[in-house]
Amino acid sequence: MTRIGIIGLGYVGLAHAVAFALHGYEVVGVEINERRLMAIEQGRVNGLPQEVVRRALESRLRITNDYEKLRDVDLAFLAVGTPTNPDSSQDLSQIMSALDELARVWRSGEGNRVVVVKSTVLPGTTRRLSKWARELGLREVGFVHSPEFLVADRALEGVLRPSRVVVGGVDEKSTSIVAAFFREFYRRVGFMPPIHVVSAEEAELIKYASNIFLALKTVFGNLIGIVCEELENCDAWRVIEIVGLDPRIGKSHLMPGMPYGGPCLVKDVSAFGRFAQELANIDFFISIHRYNEWLRDRIISILRERLGKLREKHIAVLGMAYKPGVSEIKDSQGFILARELLKEGAEVWIHDVEADAVRDAFTFLDGVKEIKSLEEICSMDAAIVTLNYDVYRKISCTNEYPLIVDVVNVTSNASPKTINLYKSMKK
Amino acid sequence: MTRIGIIGLGYVGLAHAVAFALHGYEVVGVEINERRLMAIEQGRVNGLPQEVVRRALESRLRITNDYEKLRDVDLAFLAVGTPTNPDSSQDLSQIMSALDELARVWRSGEGNRVVVVKSTVLPGTTRRLSKWARELGLREVGFVHSPEFLVADRALEGVLRPSRVVVGGVDEKSTSIVAAFFREFYRRVGFMPPIHVVSAEEAELIKYASNIFLALKTVFGNLIGIVCEELENCDAWRVIEIVGLDPRIGKSHLMPGMPYGGPCLVKDVSAFGRFAQELANIDFFISIHRYNEWLRDRIISILRERLGKLREKHIAVLGMAYKPGVSEIKDSQGFILARELLKEGAEVWIHDVEADAVRDAFTFLDGVKEIKSLEEICSMDAAIVTLNYDVYRKISCTNEYPLIVDVVNVTSNASPKTINLYKSMKK
Repeated sequence: MTRIGIIGLGYVGLAHAVAFALHGYEVVGVEINERRLMAIEQGRVNGLPQEVVRRALESRLRITNDYEKLRDVDLAFLAVGTPTNPDSSQDLSQIMSALDELARVWRSGEGNRVVVVKSTVLPGTTRRLSKWARELGLREVGFVHSPEFLVADRALEGVLRPSRVVVGGVDEKSTSIVAAFFREFYRRVGFMPPIHVVSAEEAELIKYASNIFLALKTVFGNLIGIVCEELENCDAWRVIEIVGLDPRIGKSHLMPGMPYGGPCLVKDVSAFGRFAQELANIDFFISIHRYNEWLRDRIISILRERLGKLREKHIAVLGMAYKPGVSEIKDSQGFILARELLKEGAEVWIHDVEADAVRDAFTFLDGVKEIKSLEEICSMDAAIVTLNYDVYRKISCTNEYPLIVDVVNVTSNASPKTINLYKSMKK
Repeated sequence: MTRIGIIGLGYVGLAHAVAFALHGYEVVGVEINERRLMAIEQGRVNGLPQEVVRRALESRLRITNDYEKLRDVDLAFLAVGTPTNPDSSQDLSQIMSALDELARVWRSGEGNRVVVVKSTVLPGTTRRLSKWARELGLREVGFVHSPEFLVADRALEGVLRPSRVVVGGVDEKSTSIVAAFFREFYRRVGFMPPIHVVSAEEAELIKYASNIFLALKTVFGNLIGIVCEELENCDAWRVIEIVGLDPRIGKSHLMPGMPYGGPCLVKDVSAFGRFAQELANIDFFISIHRYNEWLRDRIISILRERLGKLREKHIAVLGMAYKPGVSEIKDSQGFILARELLKEGAEVWIHDVEADAVRDAFTFLDGVKEIKSLEEICSMDAAIVTLNYDVYRKISCTNEYPLIVDVVNVTSNASPKTINLYKSMKK
C-alpha cells in the first residue's frame, strides 16, 4: 500500500491528507508553521469539517513539523505556497526548501519514489525542479505535476469528486506510478474521475489557462456591465444572466460585480501574465490583470467624483473576504479597497459577516476601524458594498443615507443616494 | 392568426420565413436582391434543406421584391444586413430603406403592428429606429429587438429549437405582442424555449456580449497555443481539450486554430469595440479584434521567416471558407490570408472542399490561381492549411515537400518541413 507524505498543510494539502487517510492510506503531513499545526490538531481549520479532520487524525493521518518522518513514504505531495514576488515573478522558496529537506531524508534508498507537485507552478518548473533534485542527490526520484482545481470552501469534495485529474509527468515511469495511485485511490472512494496523462508542461499550462480564463470571464462581465451603465434601460445582471445561459458561455464567473480577487486568481494571472510576456512577447494575459486593477480603481474614482477629496471622509467597506461565505482576505478586492482608501487619508470602517475576515484585516490595515453595528454607516460619508450578504440588503437609515456604492447588486433601491454599478446611470 | 412579413431573405430571414410558414402562418418574404430571390425560387440555398424550402413555398410562404405585399401583415421581421463601415461604425442603410418602404405601405391603419428587428444592431439602435419611424409617419407601430443566435449551417434548427428567445421591447405593448406570438409559434412547434423579456437595449447588448465572448474564447485559445509553442513537450490541442472539460469554461470556440472569422464575429467585435470605446472609453473589446488580426499577421510572418521575401513565391492557401462544411467566405481568415499574400506579390493558389467557396473567392481575388489537384502543392514553396478537412490530412508528396504551415492540427507529421502551430517548436 502506497505510503504518502504531504508537505504543506494549507487547505489543499490538508484536504488531500484527510481524503487519503480516510481511504486507507498511511499519511504523514508536514507543516512547519507551528500555529497552523496547532490549529489543525485542535480542529480549528476553515473549509474542512472539523469532525472529518478529527477522524483522519485518529486513524491514519499523522501531522508533524519534522521532515524526518517522511523517510519511508513512496509519494510526496508538495502543497506549499507559490506566492508572487513584487515584480510578478514566482517565489519558489517554499518549494526549494521542502525539496532540500526531502533530499536530506530520502538520499538513501530512493526506489520508485515520486514527488507530486500540487502547488501551482509556471510551465517548465516541474522539469527544472527534477533536474535540481538530481543535483541535490535524488538521482532516481520521479517528478509529476498534478494541478488541483479545488474551491476553497469545498476542498474535500474537490479531492473526492474532481471533474478531472491531470497527471503531468517529467518521465513515463513516474507518470504511470502516480496515475496508478490515483486509480487505486478513486476505486477506494468509489468514484472514478477521468484521469488525463499529459506532459509536466501541459499540466502546468492547463492549470494556468483554467484560472486565467475564469479571471477573464469576470473582467469581461464587469466591462459589459460598464457599457450597460452608459445605456438607457439596462441592467447588466439581467444581461449577463441571459448571456450565461448559452452553453458555450456559462454563467460561472461571468456575473458583474467586484473585480476578481482571492488567493489564486490574482497571483496566477499576474505571474502567468509576466511569464507569457517574457516567453512569447504576449501582453494579453498581463492586460487582464491591468483591466482588473482598473475596475477596482474605478470604484474609488466614483467615490472621488461624488465626495471630492477622500481625506478624512468616513468610508465604510462592507465585505473584507474575497467572496461570500469565506473568511480569506488574501488579495481580496474589498480588503485592497480599504487599504487604498487609507492611503488616500480616509477614515476607513470595515465590516464582514465572517469575524475571522475582520480580525485578519485588522492585523494588516493600520488605523482601520471596525463597524460594530451596520446602523453606524448611516452617519458616514459613503459605504461600498463588496459582498452579496443579506445583512447588507437590509441596511436602512432613518434620516440621511450615506452615498452607497453597491458593486454587487444587493441593496437595490435603499436610497436615492445609492449608486448601483452595472445598471443604467442615466434614468 | 398573425400575418407575418420578413424583410431580407438571407439565411436568418429565410430560416424564419420557412419555419413560420410550415407551422401555419401566412408569410410574405421580401428580398430586393433579384439573384437571391431567383436562387430561393429555384431552391438553390445554402444551409437550408431544399425540400423544406420547396414545401414552404408550396404552402404559405410567398416571396417577392415588392414591399406592397406587406400591406396587411401584423409583424414585420427585419433581417437585412448590418455591415460594418470601413471606420468600424455600423451601416444601417439597409434597415433605413426597409423602414422607409414599410412606412409607405403601412401608413394607413397601423393597428397593433410591430417591427421585430432581427438584424444585429448596436445598443440603443432599436429605440432610435422607433423614433425615426414615428417621423416617417408610423405613429403607433411598436418596435422590438429579438436577436438571433443561429448557426449558419443549422439555421432552421436554430429557429425551431433555440436554447432561448430574447424579446427586447421599446414599449410594453409591442413586447407583449411579440412574446405572445413566440409562445403561440412554439406551441405549434411543440417545443417551448425560455422566452426572456427585457429592454431593447438589454436585448441588443445580450447579442453582442454573446458573440464577443465567443470571439474572445478563440483569441484566448490561440494565445495559450502560442505559449505552448515556446515550451517543451507541449501540444495546445491537448491542453485546451482538458481545459475545456471544466464546465465553467467549455470547449466551444476555445480550440486553437485560425483566428476567428466569418460573417458575424468579425463585424460584431469590431463594431461593438468601437462603440464601447466611444460610449464608455473601454478599449478592451476593440483589443480583441486587434489580437485577432495579429494572430493572422503572425502566420504571414512565419512564412516570411522561413521563405524570406514572399514576392513571386508560390503559396497555397488550403481552405477559403470560414469554417469546415460551409462555403461562406465573408471575413474568412483563409480568404483574407490569400488577399494579404497577393498584396505581398506572392503567386497565390487556393483550394477549398466546397466549390462555391473557391468560386466566390475568385470573384474577389485578382490574379489568384485555383488548385485542381492537391498534388500540385508539392512543387510550391509553401502551403497554409486553414481548415480541418480530411483531404488535407492525406496530402503526400513523393520527393520534396513544400513548407506546410498547419494552423488547424490536421497534417500532423506530413513532412519534416511541416510547422504545426500551437505545439512545441523546440523539440
